[in-house]
Amino acid sequence: MTRPIYNRVALIGLGLIASSMAHAMRAGGLVGEIAGHAKSAETRGVALEIGLCDHVYATAAEAVRGADLVVLAVPVGAMAAIAAEIGPHLAPGATVTDVGSVKQAVIEAVAPHIPEGVQFIPGHPMAGTEYSGPRSGFASLFQNRWWLLTPAPEVDPVALTRLEDLLKAMGAKTNRMEPAHHDQVLAVVSHTPHLIAYTMVGVADHLAQVSNSEVIEYSASGFRDFTRIAASDPTMWRDVFLTNKDAVLDILGRFAEELFVLQRAIRMGDGEHLFDYFTRTRAIRRGIIEAGQDTAAPDFGRGAGPAKSAPGA
Amino acid sequence: MTRPIYNRVALIGLGLIASSMAHAMRAGGLVGEIAGHAKSAETRGVALEIGLCDHVYATAAEAVRGADLVVLAVPVGAMAAIAAEIGPHLAPGATVTDVGSVKQAVIEAVAPHIPEGVQFIPGHPMAGTEYSGPRSGFASLFQNRWWLLTPAPEVDPVALTRLEDLLKAMGAKTNRMEPAHHDQVLAVVSHTPHLIAYTMVGVADHLAQVSNSEVIEYSASGFRDFTRIAASDPTMWRDVFLTNKDAVLDILGRFAEELFVLQRAIRMGDGEHLFDYFTRTRAIRRGIIEAGQDTAAPDFGRGAGPAKSAPGA
Repeated sequence: MTRPIYNRVALIGLGLIASSMAHAMRAGGLVGEIAGHAKSAETRGVALEIGLCDHVYATAAEAVRGADLVVLAVPVGAMAAIAAEIGPHLAPGATVTDVGSVKQAVIEAVAPHIPEGVQFIPGHPMAGTEYSGPRSGFASLFQNRWWLLTPAPEVDPVALTRLEDLLKAMGAKTNRMEPAHHDQVLAVVSHTPHLIAYTMVGVADHLAQVSNSEVIEYSASGFRDFTRIAASDPTMWRDVFLTNKDAVLDILGRFAEELFVLQRAIRMGDGEHLFDYFTRTRAIRRGIIEAGQDTAAPDFGRGAGPAKSAPGA
Repeated sequence: MTRPIYNRVALIGLGLIASSMAHAMRAGGLVGEIAGHAKSAETRGVALEIGLCDHVYATAAEAVRGADLVVLAVPVGAMAAIAAEIGPHLAPGATVTDVGSVKQAVIEAVAPHIPEGVQFIPGHPMAGTEYSGPRSGFASLFQNRWWLLTPAPEVDPVALTRLEDLLKAMGAKTNRMEPAHHDQVLAVVSHTPHLIAYTMVGVADHLAQVSNSEVIEYSASGFRDFTRIAASDPTMWRDVFLTNKDAVLDILGRFAEELFVLQRAIRMGDGEHLFDYFTRTRAIRRGIIEAGQDTAAPDFGRGAGPAKSAPGA
């Protein structure tokens, strides 16, 4: 890659995703320079100190000036205000994208503020860890992960391909999807599972007959995966549930029904029902391994991989 | 370790736990010889072929003859029949232990068949993967994991210490616990989380508007951990839920209440409630990392560690 794909990228918000993008773009020589904005002065200080950005700005409006790519990497609930602030300062011909986990709500919040001559291409990198903040990023976060785009039909195809080139150069696989369908898929594979994990951790926290220290000490099996999920950024997840409300409530309703059927099988001692159910769920797991979304190496109940995947690597 | 801790160990059932014990005992020179029994002729053939056991037997009664340690490593629902079969053939002075995930039901099933002069020490290694069968074991499975024992007060302390010596020599940490308390703790940290994961995977399987291939393809976040849990051995888990019914139903009831409160907060748009809830659950996660049950390396949403933890390692 001899020529950068964008000359100046503005990262608005400097958390896990933006800082990983900065590392990946720098490692690949994919962009000319990186401008950044974060609300907190402390985060801006860290971003300069560890060299995430070439320039940091106290306001988003300043950060986006002259940028040919603007990445909105703030919680979904903060998108509308940021879009309103930067709208008048976007350079003609620029592309604006975002990294929010919900797409319909982001489009409603951002699209009205995008001026004529600027392309808005909503995006969602399906990658993350339970860590957050400017120090949590690392260049390989997007390696072999999906980065879904939900562009409007009238978007400029050249701008779309250019953005996809950047995402692929950071290691991601890209796909295009309808915003409403994206939100449904995510409610199933990510949002509702997160809510359930949060709930189970909360239940454990409230028990009187089993102490918290016992829960923590004996968390080897099952529960430990839940706590990892439930340790994710509270602000981000609050906004996800508030803005993907309909799809999440639909899946939650189905989940409750299904759980009650299994609960009844346990109460009635219906071993055949349980066995058949558990046998069916194995097939989906096999499909995931075949689809390359996970390795077949046994991991459950033991530690995460060694430092290879640690922050900053 | 110049002298083996037991002269002859009989492994009854040759799945993940027993085969991992065989590898660990052999690697450490912890036992003289290993006898094995499995119901299936195919499993017995594999056990001989890969050298898990020195001798395999078509019946459990033959396998336990002359053994000073007998390990019942069959699903909880199969314990009673096995105990009835081996009872008359146990050597005087032998110790019988088991590896079931539920303890009260195993004690009810096994204890009546243990003859005078034989020690029964119920046990539960809190280690596992989503794989099963005689080829799934590996020597390091128990490394730094808890192995809980729930002995009756009248058990011979010498026999108890000897068993603990073996478990520690395989890398495990041991603790003693009341059987009823064990079953409550496990309902929270393992059994109910497994049921919930099975349920969520089942919900995804039934959806019409999101295809199974999409669920599989985009399973990076949250859902993937659930499928790993839900891929565990169906027979083992059926028996867990049938035999730890009361504790699991209690926790499930609490879970449903808690979930409905969060569901209501989403429906009402109560972001403050969600944010506070999600913030509290982070603390438990931090406790788990401090307790050494997991590493701080980010793992969620990405692959399991490299071959270091692969089967046979």
